[in-house]
Amino acid sequence: MPEMQRKSPESLQDRLDQVLALVRQLHAAESAEQEDVDQVADVLREEVSRELQQRLDELHPADVAVILESMPLEERLLAWQLVRSERDGDILLEVSDAVREMLIADMDSHEILAAANNLDADELADLAPDLPRDVVRELMDTLDVNERERLKSALSFAEDEVGALMDFDMITIRDDVTLEVVSRYLRRFDSLPDHNDKLFVIDADGVLKGVLPIRKLLVSSPEMTVAEVMSDDPVLFRASDDADEATQAFERYDLISAPVVDDDGRLFGRLTIDAVVDYIREQSEAEVLSAAGLREEEDIFSSVWKSVRNRWAWLAINLCTALVASRVIGLFEGSIEQLVALAALMPIVAGIGGNSGNQTITMIVRGIATGQVQVAHGKRLLKKEIGVALVNGLFWGFVLSLIAYLLYGNAPLSIVLMSAMVLNMLLAAMMGVCIPLLRVRFGRDPALGSSVMITSITDSGGFFIFLGLATIFLL
Amino acid sequence: MPEMQRKSPESLQDRLDQVLALVRQLHAAESAEQEDVDQVADVLREEVSRELQQRLDELHPADVAVILESMPLEERLLAWQLVRSERDGDILLEVSDAVREMLIADMDSHEILAAANNLDADELADLAPDLPRDVVRELMDTLDVNERERLKSALSFAEDEVGALMDFDMITIRDDVTLEVVSRYLRRFDSLPDHNDKLFVIDADGVLKGVLPIRKLLVSSPEMTVAEVMSDDPVLFRASDDADEATQAFERYDLISAPVVDDDGRLFGRLTIDAVVDYIREQSEAEVLSAAGLREEEDIFSSVWKSVRNRWAWLAINLCTALVASRVIGLFEGSIEQLVALAALMPIVAGIGGNSGNQTITMIVRGIATGQVQVAHGKRLLKKEIGVALVNGLFWGFVLSLIAYLLYGNAPLSIVLMSAMVLNMLLAAMMGVCIPLLRVRFGRDPALGSSVMITSITDSGGFFIFLGLATIFLL
Repeated sequence: MPEMQRKSPESLQDRLDQVLALVRQLHAAESAEQEDVDQVADVLREEVSRELQQRLDELHPADVAVILESMPLEERLLAWQLVRSERDGDILLEVSDAVREMLIADMDSHEILAAANNLDADELADLAPDLPRDVVRELMDTLDVNERERLKSALSFAEDEVGALMDFDMITIRDDVTLEVVSRYLRRFDSLPDHNDKLFVIDADGVLKGVLPIRKLLVSSPEMTVAEVMSDDPVLFRASDDADEATQAFERYDLISAPVVDDDGRLFGRLTIDAVVDYIREQSEAEVLSAAGLREEEDIFSSVWKSVRNRWAWLAINLCTALVASRVIGLFEGSIEQLVALAALMPIVAGIGGNSGNQTITMIVRGIATGQVQVAHGKRLLKKEIGVALVNGLFWGFVLSLIAYLLYGNAPLSIVLMSAMVLNMLLAAMMGVCIPLLRVRFGRDPALGSSVMITSITDSGGFFIFLGLATIFLL
Repeated sequence: MPEMQRKSPESLQDRLDQVLALVRQLHAAESAEQEDVDQVADVLREEVSRELQQRLDELHPADVAVILESMPLEERLLAWQLVRSERDGDILLEVSDAVREMLIADMDSHEILAAANNLDADELADLAPDLPRDVVRELMDTLDVNERERLKSALSFAEDEVGALMDFDMITIRDDVTLEVVSRYLRRFDSLPDHNDKLFVIDADGVLKGVLPIRKLLVSSPEMTVAEVMSDDPVLFRASDDADEATQAFERYDLISAPVVDDDGRLFGRLTIDAVVDYIREQSEAEVLSAAGLREEEDIFSSVWKSVRNRWAWLAINLCTALVASRVIGLFEGSIEQLVALAALMPIVAGIGGNSGNQTITMIVRGIATGQVQVAHGKRLLKKEIGVALVNGLFWGFVLSLIAYLLYGNAPLSIVLMSAMVLNMLLAAMMGVCIPLLRVRFGRDPALGSSVMITSITDSGGFFIFLGLATIFLL
């Protein structure tokens, strides 16, 4: 990879803006061209296109990716055609899934194969799911045996396994040589892999015996042997390990790279901090998106139909829960007819229950994810959350019932409102603690859809409690 | 920092569980002791406490932090007292803010000063906000001039500036020496700092001239000079740079460390990937928490009162918006009295608007954060989102109005329901695009409270549209 050529994020922003302006200019020229084909416009177009190509060449693939993502469709394809084909692969690795899909759809199989040519097996594995099947098969044929095996094994892991994140850029050494020999061996490389903060020490069978951190190599005497200096019990992972746990280990121990071994202890690959950071970012992205009811990251400039599909599922679920809540209200239509203030006040009871339940369930789900909350803590947490719900419910219930009294001058109605608020918040607290803990006990993901579930309970529950109490005590 | 002594996350979990079990045993023994003070129990207690202490000693500070976070209050303090005081500082750096506050409250100023003794200036700066003021003053006095200056400058930066994340563990060299000399210089260190993937090249005034990546040092001929091998235009940051942009640069260019300079270009400190990862994690944490209406991370075992305070503000805001929605319904009490089905159906209109608005605003806010969306794209995005809202609104509106017809057998009511759903989703789409773009234009954070804002608009708007249409056309 080339050394960076930029001084700071600011001047980078300027460059990106210039490229965007050039693309817009070119796009305008292309559109105009169809109307009046004169030679002056043609020359201008050539010139802009040459300058644009040169500027794109100077940018890091990650920066080109950002530029492509922030352009509307036609301009994006225009710029994509100007990127030199040997850089296509690196850039495809950097763009978001949605944009990648769209760029690949624009390439024919020759272009795809050419782009794939410059990539390592682990990088190919990242791209493969988005490529047409026959292209992947052709691709396999162009690889040597070693690379093909690596690609196959990288493809065999699930997205949340360490195997899917690892690469194969490790430098291996034996433990019986001196550091002097190691240094000479390293000097024979033209360049070392990224994130190469340690060398991996293996025996003749490829079994990992330890790691030699580069910083130990630098400070130790050249006459010492690798065996004397290496760490023989490093943090290591199996390819089938859970990626979440591996990223937590990277964070806890501030790792830059770590060995990945197979079941027999043989060195298989390595995991590096850049893959870990990408994974952390993707996970937190997915969390935010799913909290808002989006299935996956959207290309912001994609078509209406693609967006509709992405948002469909959650709207459907939410409509079902809304329908249930609506039927609960339907049960009490007679009561509402008699005391129409109930209709105006009932969303308050449902709303505060939903908010307070979401606060509780978010705390518990996060505690489970970080390992702070175990099922054994259930009783204690329940007691605390019920305490919080009581305090909040009594206080806000009092405030709201006071306001209701000023509006409607109906004291019994205010008392029912306050009771319903307290009861619904207690319901929210109990469900907020129990739902995630029960899901963990039954081996489910506690986070998935937790917000939808708690909100639907506190909506229907809130309407039922408030309207039920009102029917019993007010009518 | 000691080398890691563990094989994989699994065996670590076993160790953590063992420590937790020991603490529980000790806590039980202590509680029992008050009733019957016999010598057998005393001996047992001593033994457990010794084993526990030894096990805690063997664990990495980050692991001890996790253990402390996952214990209820009394057990946590019991374990904390058994941690050797020279490790207190490192562990305090690793625990969450809420737990740190609680542990420091348990220490007297002597213990705090002893713990601070082992920390660097940048680490002290992280702790300082949680320490009592007089202890910080005392601490300043114990530092040498150099360290004191560093602590002061580190404390002078805001949380979201690069200066608050940087450390001072950089190794500097001159550009006129050979790599041979650099290697010999490094060998004089007992150990090198963490994340030391490059050396910083400065002139006599301390101005940064370039960086020498360790991997270039390893592969280049020892006779070459630093000036020949170094990169003279590295990615660098100013201490006052925005931390978000710096973390994006770290992700884009897969950096491990980068120089931080002052306004005159003098080397000031360095930013490392571990600080960046912590920052990314904290930011995404804050995003999830604030989406659920929590002000900050909560110690899951904290008192009811602390939790109430943390959740107070958001409940208050949400109650205000619920009250507004309730008053909108209040305007139409006459209509509801005449056609009580309106009360049962109105939450559906409000709910789907809220969901669809949250989907839109989340997309736009994320696009702004990643730089893909600019204010100039407003019109195009608005057009697309209106398209999505129309498709979803017409489809789901049709489904729901069909269900409503089956329930109530009132065709005009169904038509009003469908129209209200479409209109509320259009409102949601427009607000979802315009609110974040307008906030950006006026220099505000587009994310802050975006979900609350859109939900309150679609709630009140949904009730108003549905009940208003019903009043005009049905009554």
